[in-house]
Amino acid sequence: MPTAIQELSSLLARLPGVGKRTAARLAFHLLETPAAFAARLGESIAALHQRVATCEICGNLDDTSPCAVCAAPDRDDRTLCVVATVPDLWAIEESVSFRGRFHVLGGLLSPLDGRGPDDLNLSGLRQRVERGGVAEVVLAMRPSVEGEATAMLVRELLAGLSARITRIATGVPHGGELEYADRVTLGRAFDDRREI
Amino acid sequence: MPTAIQELSSLLARLPGVGKRTAARLAFHLLETPAAFAARLGESIAALHQRVATCEICGNLDDTSPCAVCAAPDRDDRTLCVVATVPDLWAIEESVSFRGRFHVLGGLLSPLDGRGPDDLNLSGLRQRVERGGVAEVVLAMRPSVEGEATAMLVRELLAGLSARITRIATGVPHGGELEYADRVTLGRAFDDRREI
Repeated sequence: MPTAIQELSSLLARLPGVGKRTAARLAFHLLETPAAFAARLGESIAALHQRVATCEICGNLDDTSPCAVCAAPDRDDRTLCVVATVPDLWAIEESVSFRGRFHVLGGLLSPLDGRGPDDLNLSGLRQRVERGGVAEVVLAMRPSVEGEATAMLVRELLAGLSARITRIATGVPHGGELEYADRVTLGRAFDDRREI
Repeated sequence: MPTAIQELSSLLARLPGVGKRTAARLAFHLLETPAAFAARLGESIAALHQRVATCEICGNLDDTSPCAVCAAPDRDDRTLCVVATVPDLWAIEESVSFRGRFHVLGGLLSPLDGRGPDDLNLSGLRQRVERGGVAEVVLAMRPSVEGEATAMLVRELLAGLSARITRIATGVPHGGELEYADRVTLGRAFDDRREI
């Protein structure tokens, strides 16, 4: 097999969800695409780290630091949404469901992966809330054992400060089938039921 | 979202089997990997076309032309295996089930995809067989409507020349469950049964 295909396949196989076969198939596919496409894709990947900045305020990734969300003058400074990761932040941004500011922890507590409190950006969060002006901290970690543990940790971290701590609702997703919802989700959906 | 992530996602989403969400996830993942890995992967993709040569004899892709298979002195020139694509050729090479030479057609007949006889390397195949010295042409297209149609076309193309035309067997794959084999596969497996 061409050396270039072998080398590329072994690099692609390190990506999540890409097995050896998929990697080889992708490498051969890239040879069939125009050379200009492969060149653009390759340069885009190679330059990625240089083109993206980590926001010094919230930990978001964007073209600049501070990021577009922190720099926007028309957002609500009194509400701070805590997310685990940058993709979570952008998913919330795209849903247009929140107009406050963000704080990115950089992951969830996960003893199995060796990720403890020291690996999360907790001190930065405490400082932002201590500085005052934050009335509500909305925890938007995903509903899972790790998400719950991290939410509890953040609640303890901010205990005694003046901000309210809330958590986004867990329930049956829009368009989801009740039949396929798991027991915990259904239980939460009943616990958090509301008047209509 | 960072412009670099958006651009990379839209390029990745053009790859087969990569949807918009997977593309964004891959782009964010690449940001989490060391910059050196992203740089190596990017350069490997960008340089791919320059590093791979199309074999002038058989149409294979390799580091050089003629390819390693055509250049090998110890292979059987009298047997020519016809495959649809280069990945098919390398799959057969890896199985070490064939020690003759190859010919790559560059695809299968597929009216739905607009691929007709003129899009396949048929004249090159006829010339190689006409030149003499080939005793057997083994057709190794996959068993499907397109594969059958292409095999029939190659048989007609080579009709009247001295080479025998054979086709690799269709049957239940090794390790496969009879229960899950389709009707055509089982039918062929019975038709092609042999003494043991």
